[in-house]
Amino acid sequence: MDLKTLIRDIPDFPKAGILYRDITTLLQNPKGFGFVIDQLTELYQNESIDYIAGIESRGFIFGTPLAHRLSVGFVPIRKPGKLPSATHSAEYDLEYGTDCLQIHQDAFPAGSRVLLVDDLLATGGTAAAATQLISATGSTLVGIAFVIELTALAGREKLPSIAIQSLIQY
Amino acid sequence: MDLKTLIRDIPDFPKAGILYRDITTLLQNPKGFGFVIDQLTELYQNESIDYIAGIESRGFIFGTPLAHRLSVGFVPIRKPGKLPSATHSAEYDLEYGTDCLQIHQDAFPAGSRVLLVDDLLATGGTAAAATQLISATGSTLVGIAFVIELTALAGREKLPSIAIQSLIQY
Repeated sequence: MDLKTLIRDIPDFPKAGILYRDITTLLQNPKGFGFVIDQLTELYQNESIDYIAGIESRGFIFGTPLAHRLSVGFVPIRKPGKLPSATHSAEYDLEYGTDCLQIHQDAFPAGSRVLLVDDLLATGGTAAAATQLISATGSTLVGIAFVIELTALAGREKLPSIAIQSLIQY
Repeated sequence: MDLKTLIRDIPDFPKAGILYRDITTLLQNPKGFGFVIDQLTELYQNESIDYIAGIESRGFIFGTPLAHRLSVGFVPIRKPGKLPSATHSAEYDLEYGTDCLQIHQDAFPAGSRVLLVDDLLATGGTAAAATQLISATGSTLVGIAFVIELTALAGREKLPSIAIQSLIQY
């Protein structure tokens, strides 16, 4: 299945000059969405994953069906102020200013093997912050799965020595 | 399975006097999370659902595995500025001020049967706004599924003549 035919290109969103890859048209299509989850399941079913961690909020969309298929727990990595118990925090740079992600300190039992999931690899800043959070819990990051990778932005360079998979490359 | 044993109670979050029902401990537990998705699948598998709509962002956590299990499409209802194509908007009241949700105008083909999913029914304001959005698309709202219902807040009164199911009541 050519997943690119299910991704909608939207010019100048969120601002002029950006070509936005819209996944909502993929999600609307049960065969396409199912194919993505099947592919991810196949990639990771023999990796002894204990938990999927997903980055708010589009990482939740792919991470939770994958956790369900692999019969493992799901851990949300969220924006500040959303998680109610004690958290670790990691800042990352935006074009102007910084943003922050948090994870519960007790998200994983010691020694857990964790797969990180997000929808899109662009510059890699968000994913790098999320990997710091998983390290802070003392767990092992098995790898990162993205649905889409924008290769021109070289996000993998911000994530050295991490096993990265992406299903669709632009 | 007694799902309440997997929900963590956190006093005074997000502010003094609120007892927050934390679902992250449920999500960490693959049997508990799987049981929730099994229960929702059983409730809706014979309802000829065409699409699941989930409210950002915890509605994504339960809505996408359910869409995957039912082999139907998933449509995100999001905060303003997140959806890249033409949207309908609906405002709803917060304790102080208002907030807004959006849906893509082309989210569903005409006549689709849609199930709305969110994690929690409290006062019902968010869900009422989401039902307005589904109506605006011309689709049929089959019902709303919540994982948790806070019955003392009488959210169902804001959602008259809608078929509502919740798995856990407080």
